[in-house]
Amino acid sequence: MSFRQFVVIGLGRFGSSVAKTLYSLGNEVLVIDKDEEKVQEMADFATHAVQADATDEAALRSLGIRNFDVAVIAIGDDVQSSIMVTLLAKEYGIKYVIAKAQNELHAKVLYKIGADRVVFPEREMGVRVGHNLCSSNILEYIELSPDYSIMEVTPLEEWHGKSLSELNMRSKYGINIMAIKRGNDINISPTADDVLQEGDILVVVGATDDLKNIERRKMR
Amino acid sequence: MSFRQFVVIGLGRFGSSVAKTLYSLGNEVLVIDKDEEKVQEMADFATHAVQADATDEAALRSLGIRNFDVAVIAIGDDVQSSIMVTLLAKEYGIKYVIAKAQNELHAKVLYKIGADRVVFPEREMGVRVGHNLCSSNILEYIELSPDYSIMEVTPLEEWHGKSLSELNMRSKYGINIMAIKRGNDINISPTADDVLQEGDILVVVGATDDLKNIERRKMR
Ligand SMILES: Nc1ncnc2c1ncn2[C@@H]1O[C@H](COP(=O)(O)OP(=O)(O)OP(=O)(O)O)[C@@H](O)[C@H]1O
Ligand SMILES: Nc1ncnc2c1ncn2[C@@H]1O[C@H](COP(=O)(O)OP(=O)(O)OP(=O)(O)O)[C@@H](O)[C@H]1O
Ligand SMILES: [Ca+2]
Ligand SMILES: [Ca+2]
Ligand SMILES: [Ca+2]
Ligand SMILES: [Ca+2]
Repeated sequence: MSFRQFVVIGLGRFGSSVAKTLYSLGNEVLVIDKDEEKVQEMADFATHAVQADATDEAALRSLGIRNFDVAVIAIGDDVQSSIMVTLLAKEYGIKYVIAKAQNELHAKVLYKIGADRVVFPEREMGVRVGHNLCSSNILEYIELSPDYSIMEVTPLEEWHGKSLSELNMRSKYGINIMAIKRGNDINISPTADDVLQEGDILVVVGATDDLKNIERRKMR
Repeated sequence: MSFRQFVVIGLGRFGSSVAKTLYSLGNEVLVIDKDEEKVQEMADFATHAVQADATDEAALRSLGIRNFDVAVIAIGDDVQSSIMVTLLAKEYGIKYVIAKAQNELHAKVLYKIGADRVVFPEREMGVRVGHNLCSSNILEYIELSPDYSIMEVTPLEEWHGKSLSELNMRSKYGINIMAIKRGNDINISPTADDVLQEGDILVVVGATDDLKNIERRKMR
């Protein structure tokens, strides 16, 4: 499957950011909002920008909505519209419909009526920022799967001046160092001889539990 | 610096998610919202949950706001309140104040009045989701720095059945494979002998430009 034609409905902060990203990567992107001002602001960042109420079937049909491969429904506060528009998108045969949800109940309904993926942008970013804030030394935190994550972290004090082979992270802590940032440099293929320094930032991957152990040690 | 006492003001989707994450990691977390219902919902996910208008100086003072190490100002739509509360938090001497912004102008003002970090949760997630959607094969996309990123991607067809040493990713594509997901397994220390298979998911790190090249090849 190769997605090409995208329609983004709802140009709030999330929807407009998705649309701009898709457009910047060279895709065809139709954006729709019922608010004329939002539409104007996106004119230069989309293939077509149209003012329309997306719950209006006739309007959607006249925009040729059935020809699109992917629909992004980024209507948040108005849950009823979000649900109606998602339903219409699936009815028009759009293969992949991704919708933004306000909460679990909203998400459940969206999946029931056929959404292929439901996202919670604010919640996901909240989890990331929470981890990053928790220790001044946890700089990024990203879930790869329910069990595995990536974390950016400064070295524990006892790691300073040690080489990766001496530290043997994999067997001792269950983690792997994937990259070392030092000042403006980033080493994306660390070798056994690389020695960690104070001020380094390590990008590590590992089981979420093993990473949390390190996070807790940093918080002490 | 070791952060411990957090106050989260504004319990929308983003603020409540930050607060829950901080609390689940064992921190002391005070949450404040002017909406009683939001406060009730957070009662079990915070150390203290208080209904108050955070632009009310007397209320903040009586909550002992000056004793907190970190304030998260998660008020979005009401830009004026967001600015006032950020200003008060800095005036009360809170060392680290992170605030959510609606747009660039809002962010500029927040930095001017002393915010230590400004975040755009919806925009950041929009960029990630945009990349992920662009090809059905780009599954995660995360910026490490302005120039380096991490991407989850399925192997190019020509990579199937080849070992990492044969592929020599680093010199050919400028990227490094940090992990290979295969079914429910995840190999976080791939070696030169590991052979890529159709259906694998690769976690790769590299210069953003090099990753975009691969992304474009996947889109063809
Ligand atoms: N029926 C509709 N047809 C077209 N556009 C709509 C419709 N209903 C809502 N919108 C638009 O969707 C956009 C996003 O909606 P809203 O602001 O409620 O979501 P949000 O989740 O708060 O957004 P953000 O991503 O900024 O957090 C708004 O610009 C709004 O005008
Ligand atoms: N002066 C204030 N004092 C306390 N709480 C406030 C104040 N102003 C706004 N809030 C609260 O902040 C919360 C978040 O605000 P709002 O919904 O405007 O932000 P948002 O950016 O749309 O949130 P979300 O993270 O859900 O996208 C709301 O629960 C609101 O009640
Ligand atoms: Ca809104
Ligand atoms: Ca929002
Ligand atoms: Ca809101
Ligand atoms: Ca909102």
